[in-house]
This record gives sequence, structure tokens and C-alpha cells, in this order.
Amino acid sequence: MLRFVIRRQFSTDIKQFPPAKHRHVPTTGKYPKGFVAGAIACGIKKGQADLSLLVSDRPAVASGVFTTNRFQAAPVQFDRQLIQEHRQKGTAGVRCVVANSGCANSITGQQGMVDAQQMSKCGDQLTGAEKSTLIMSTGVIGQRLPMDKIAGGIPKIELSGAHDGWMRAAIGYMTTDTFPKLLSKEVDSNGMRFRLAGITKGAGMIDPRMATLLGTICTDIGITQDLLDKALKHAIGRSFNCITVDGDMSTNDTIVVLANNAANQKMVDREGKEYEMFKEQLAAFMEELAKLVVRDGEGATKFATVEVQGAGTVADARRVANAIAQSSLVKTAIYGKDANWGRILCAVGYSGIEIDTQKVDLLLSSSTGSIELVKGGEPQLPVDEAKAARILDEEDLLVRVSLGMGQETSKVFTCDLSHEYVSINADYRS
Amino acid sequence: MLRFVIRRQFSTDIKQFPPAKHRHVPTTGKYPKGFVAGAIACGIKKGQADLSLLVSDRPAVASGVFTTNRFQAAPVQFDRQLIQEHRQKGTAGVRCVVANSGCANSITGQQGMVDAQQMSKCGDQLTGAEKSTLIMSTGVIGQRLPMDKIAGGIPKIELSGAHDGWMRAAIGYMTTDTFPKLLSKEVDSNGMRFRLAGITKGAGMIDPRMATLLGTICTDIGITQDLLDKALKHAIGRSFNCITVDGDMSTNDTIVVLANNAANQKMVDREGKEYEMFKEQLAAFMEELAKLVVRDGEGATKFATVEVQGAGTVADARRVANAIAQSSLVKTAIYGKDANWGRILCAVGYSGIEIDTQKVDLLLSSSTGSIELVKGGEPQLPVDEAKAARILDEEDLLVRVSLGMGQETSKVFTCDLSHEYVSINADYRS
Repeated sequence: MLRFVIRRQFSTDIKQFPPAKHRHVPTTGKYPKGFVAGAIACGIKKGQADLSLLVSDRPAVASGVFTTNRFQAAPVQFDRQLIQEHRQKGTAGVRCVVANSGCANSITGQQGMVDAQQMSKCGDQLTGAEKSTLIMSTGVIGQRLPMDKIAGGIPKIELSGAHDGWMRAAIGYMTTDTFPKLLSKEVDSNGMRFRLAGITKGAGMIDPRMATLLGTICTDIGITQDLLDKALKHAIGRSFNCITVDGDMSTNDTIVVLANNAANQKMVDREGKEYEMFKEQLAAFMEELAKLVVRDGEGATKFATVEVQGAGTVADARRVANAIAQSSLVKTAIYGKDANWGRILCAVGYSGIEIDTQKVDLLLSSSTGSIELVKGGEPQLPVDEAKAARILDEEDLLVRVSLGMGQETSKVFTCDLSHEYVSINADYRS
Repeated sequence: MLRFVIRRQFSTDIKQFPPAKHRHVPTTGKYPKGFVAGAIACGIKKGQADLSLLVSDRPAVASGVFTTNRFQAAPVQFDRQLIQEHRQKGTAGVRCVVANSGCANSITGQQGMVDAQQMSKCGDQLTGAEKSTLIMSTGVIGQRLPMDKIAGGIPKIELSGAHDGWMRAAIGYMTTDTFPKLLSKEVDSNGMRFRLAGITKGAGMIDPRMATLLGTICTDIGITQDLLDKALKHAIGRSFNCITVDGDMSTNDTIVVLANNAANQKMVDREGKEYEMFKEQLAAFMEELAKLVVRDGEGATKFATVEVQGAGTVADARRVANAIAQSSLVKTAIYGKDANWGRILCAVGYSGIEIDTQKVDLLLSSSTGSIELVKGGEPQLPVDEAKAARILDEEDLLVRVSLGMGQETSKVFTCDLSHEYVSINADYRS
């Protein structure tokens, strides 16, 4: 019988700072110049940090990607439009990102848009610049933002460019997350030195009425709008679009990148080695950030990389990887540490692409070793159950499927489906 | 805090017969003429009924629908071919359906096909007619059928055309089912009198290594091959293709219909009122049978009908209904009795069809009443939580979404996602 695993959750009580030690939470960092961060408990959630602020001391170029859900929360509609306005003007104009947890401002009708505009204006008052503030909301769907609390809270937030400020901001993003998700990195490459910092939360629409994957990445590199858009598009396909927790897509999903040029390095204004370097650095950084989301998927006890090789096209490889990574049966088998390879091939078989079942190989591995379960469509029997058990006992697993159809590959990161996932999502209001 | 619900499972120990009373299990029935049924514990599962037989005293016309998974179990490949041979000959030639539980004979390579052929031959020896036996297997993937046990078991099965024989056969189909699924009906319409009986099990690929939805429907009507094929195609789209438990599709899914003409009524050999009557009777009968599968979905505590109205096309309506019915978040909300309408609209939004969010209505109802949660895309606040709680406390729920785009509708039947689903699927081998 499996037991419930009680996951210790970081306190989002801003007074309990710094939070307890956790292996996925940094205790220090190298943050991009010109940015300050902070958070406050403004009263949306009782006594918990719920309002975060990131501010640049100069205008930054901003790029964003948003949910493709037809129901788009008011802040998503607002940000899309604001970024598009700056894109059309061709100027760096964003200086602030205000994010709240506890209320998603989603499916709130016309009033929701009015509130979104006002929330942005609160940021503008702080920066003194019009149309300089992007906004993000996560939490209950269908309820109005408490605008008085937000307007009153923003000026009171203590801001700092040091680790503590960033950590507070990360804590303010949390909903059912069990740890704040913050990464930073200094890059010294191709004669350029710059920094990246990112905050994220949630995964897909992982939770009750708490919609949303949110992510904010700040960098002090200088880059043009076109190239930042392009680099983000590249990076998103290799990071946040490669993760799945429950296959649900929220109305609020938002990832934005701000580049403020405070590093005073060569401007990245054309495609070339500097751009290529930044593009790959951004993609790798965002992949690490996205993996934190899966690792903290609701109820997750395992982290699995699903790798599909030998596909005819990248799209086919992705489709097969997604079918495996989203299968409730595969996810419960991983939770139960069961080398149940029939479920994996079953998902391959219904993924919708043409396959030659006689060419399919399947390998399962972790740091303790590998086991080839299927080769050329034939099960490799008998399965060494003791070895399989050792592999599956690890937290990090690799499921590798080879289709033998071509050269293309794809990777998707997923977690298991546990009793706690059901508890979190069924018990929300009880 | 939700508690685990311990579901009492019917014994599949054939000696404990008849099984305990259960509101979804009949104690009597009117079965089609010319058919006998039975089951035995042949030793695939320890001491449990695991081998069922249905035999017609004369050749029947047979039609089948099968999984579209690229990995097709040996019995699926075998049955497809056998039915196709009879279809090409244009003769009624099927007299027997042998079904085993405990082993799926899936992904078993060349040997699996040899075993499938031998299993069919065992039935042929009983009927004395070549190529007269369809086969079905459900259970562990990747293991060989114990052919000696099957060959030895078949001649020992006691067969009866009465309720007890059919009930034993239904018990032999069970894997993680908590009750045997058997329905029968006598139809007296349009001057014709005939009977329908059906056995089914499982739902999608709902369980561990126990692939499979299986279903066998027998009728004593006389009908041509073409019209039976056509009626089954109509019925399947309104029954077994409208249910979902976990969205996984097995390698073994099989539904067959046998019509043996023992009722001695007018032969249905052309489209007309007799055919139309049979077609609708078959569809309605199969819908009831399919609903039993959802009601007994792994860990299910709720039965929900998701109805989508006002779509531009039936395909669009189906797509939206499936997105809602398969959402882990909607299913956990139903389990938790949470009127969490944001999750339902969220699934509508990511279903992939074009919608006008300002035209969407959402209604939730059960036998205790109805509550309109969203109208024209606007939440109807405040929600009457007490009323919502009364509605959600019922076992049978209706979720109705109106898209306001057209006149087409679709219905999908689903169950909730509970702690027990995770237990069943994670704990299989522990």
C-alpha cells in the first residue's frame, strides 16, 4: 500500500524570511544590473505574500508568450497589447512587472479589463513612466481583484537588487507551489558578460481555481525587440512548452522577458555569434527554470524525462513524447514504481502518428542503470524486476523511445500522478 | 479531508454464485434464442473465473469494431481478419466467442498470433465448424497465453441459455471491474419480436497491465452483414465512443455483435422501418451498456454527462465535450464536490475549436436542481454555494455547455478522478 507523502511547504508568510533550506532553492545569486525586486502581503491571501514587484531603473525591451486558451484572462489581454504597442513604436518602454497571487482576474468580464488597466497604472506611478508596467495574476477564477489592496500595497514594497529582494518576489508568486522558483546566472561568453534571473510558478493549469504558469525573466543584456522576440520563441519551444503536469492549459499562462541593457556590453542588434550565444543561453536557462515547475508539480514525487528518438519529424517526436508524458496510466505507474512498459507503448500507439511497431525500442533508466524493455517491437523477457525496481526507486527517471523511422528527436519533462494530486485538486475548498 | 471509499468488489470466484446483490446487476433477463453462455476458472487467474464462452446453435452474422491503437493485440488482428473473411464470402459463419481475462496476448510478437489462432481453433472444435470462433483477451500485456489451460478449460465450461449462464460469462470478463456488466432486453416493435443481450468490461485502457474494453452483444434478429455493419457503426458513435475514464486507449479494445436469426422474424435485408427500428434499438441498448462501464470506471464515485449544445458541427461539439470529460482538473473537482466552473470553461477554451467566449453558457444540474454558473461568458455571481453543494452531492451529474455558435450537440459520459484511481493504478504489483 502506498502512503501519502506529506510535502513540507515553504511558508509564504513574508515575515518568516529567509525560508527554510531546500535543495532547489538558492541561498545566493548573481542578479542582472539595474533591476530591483520585492514583495508584500497586501491582503489578497490572509497574511501571505501575494504581491510582487520587479522594477528596472531604465526602460527595457520586453517580449512575451501567452496562453492559447480561448478564454484569456484580463492581464493576458492587457500585456499582449502593451508589448505590441512598444513593438510597433520600436522603443524599449517596459520598466515594471507587477504580479499578484490569490486572484486570477480571469473570466471577469469588462470590469476585469478596467482592473487590469488600473493595476498597470499603479506600477506606472512608481516608475513615473506611462505604459511601462506589465501585470500578471494567478489565483481564483471569476473573482474581482481587490484593487484597493493592490494600489495600497505597491508603494509599500521594499525593493532590493540583492538576493533577498528577488527571493521575496519569488515567494510572492507562489500558490500551491511547495518552494519558490528562482534562478540566476552570470554568463561570460564571446566577450560579453551579462546576467539572467528568472522567477516562475505553477505548471499548466495545475490547480483548483489557481490558474496559471507565470514566469518573468530579466537580463541586463542589450538586445533589439526583433531579436528578443526571436530568442524567446526559440527558448519557449525548448523549455516551458516541453513540460506537462496535468495537460490542462490555464487562462493566465504568461512568460515575459525583459532586457534592460544595464550590463553595458555590445548591443545584440543583428544575427551573429553574440545573438546565437544569447539565444542558447536563454534557452538553457529557461529549460532549468521550467524543470523546477515539473519538479514541484502538484503531488509530484518523481521527475521524468520522456525522450523520443528516431522520428520522421520533430512534430511527430513531440506528439509521441506528449502522449506518454500526459498518460494518467504512465504517470500512476511511475508513482507506483512499476516497470509497466505496456502502458508506455500503448501511449505511443494512440499518439496518432504512423509508426512501424516492429521498429520500436524502449529503454528505462536512472542514475542506477538502464534496462531495455522492448527491442524491435518485441518485449525483452523476462524483465529483471530487481533492476527495474532499483531504477524506479530514483527520483529522476528517463523514458527513451526509439521509433526507427528517422532522425528527429524531442524531449518532454513530466512528473508522476499521485494520491496527493487528487487531494490537492479535490479538497481545495473543504 | 476526503476519505478513501472502499468499493466492495464482486467476487469472481465462480463458486460464489450467484454474486451479491448490486443495483446495476440484473437478477433475471430475457436472452436471445439460440445462444448459450458460461465461464470457468481455468487457472489464468488463481481460482477466479477467467474464461468465458458464448455459443450460438447456428451460424451468426458478425460485425466488429476495434481499437485504433497502432499496437494491436493478437486477438484484435485475428478477429478483424476472420470477420473480413466472412464478410467477403457473404455468409453467416460465426458461432462462438471465447474470451479470457488475466492475460491480454498483446505485444507478444509472432507467438501471440499462433496462440490466437489456436485459441480460436479450440472454439471451432466445440462448434464443429471451421473459422467459427472469435476471440478476446484482457489482462497483462507482453505475456504469453497459457494455451494448455485455455484448451483444457473450454470443453469443461457448462453452458446455459438462462440467466445464470449469461451471468457466469459476464463474471469471466471482469478484471478490475467491481461488478459484472450484463444487460438484456426483449424488443417488440414494428411487428417484430427479438432479444438483445450484452456483456462488457473495463473502460478504455483503465487499468494497470489489464488493457481493454471488451463487449459482446448477441441478438436473435436476422440481418444481413452490410446492415449489421452499418447499424454497429451508428451505435458505436452513440455509445462506446462517447465514454471516457482516463483517456488512455488500449491495444485490445473490441466490440462485436452477433445476430443469429433464431427469433424467426422477418429478415432485415434492406433499409426501411425494420432496419431503422433495429438500428435505434441497438444504439440505445449499447448506450446503456457503455454507461455501465463509466459507472464502474476505476475509482469512480460519480457519473457525469457532459452535454455540449450550440456547436457549429457535431465534431466541434464532441471535441469540447471530450476536453471537459477528460480534464483531470474537472474530474478531481467533481470528486471533491466543488462547483469549480473555471476549470470547465478552461477546458472549453483549450479544446482547440473557435469559440466566441461572450456567447458561452454553463449549467450544472442533478436530480436536486440546476444552477446557471455562466451566461454569455459572464460569471453569475454570487454562486449559491448551498444549492451547488446539494447538486454535487448526487452521484449522477449533468454539465451542460452552450456555445451559441450553431445547432449541433454532443454528449460524453465520464466519471470522476479519485484517490482510488491512483491506488488501483499505482499499487497493481505491490
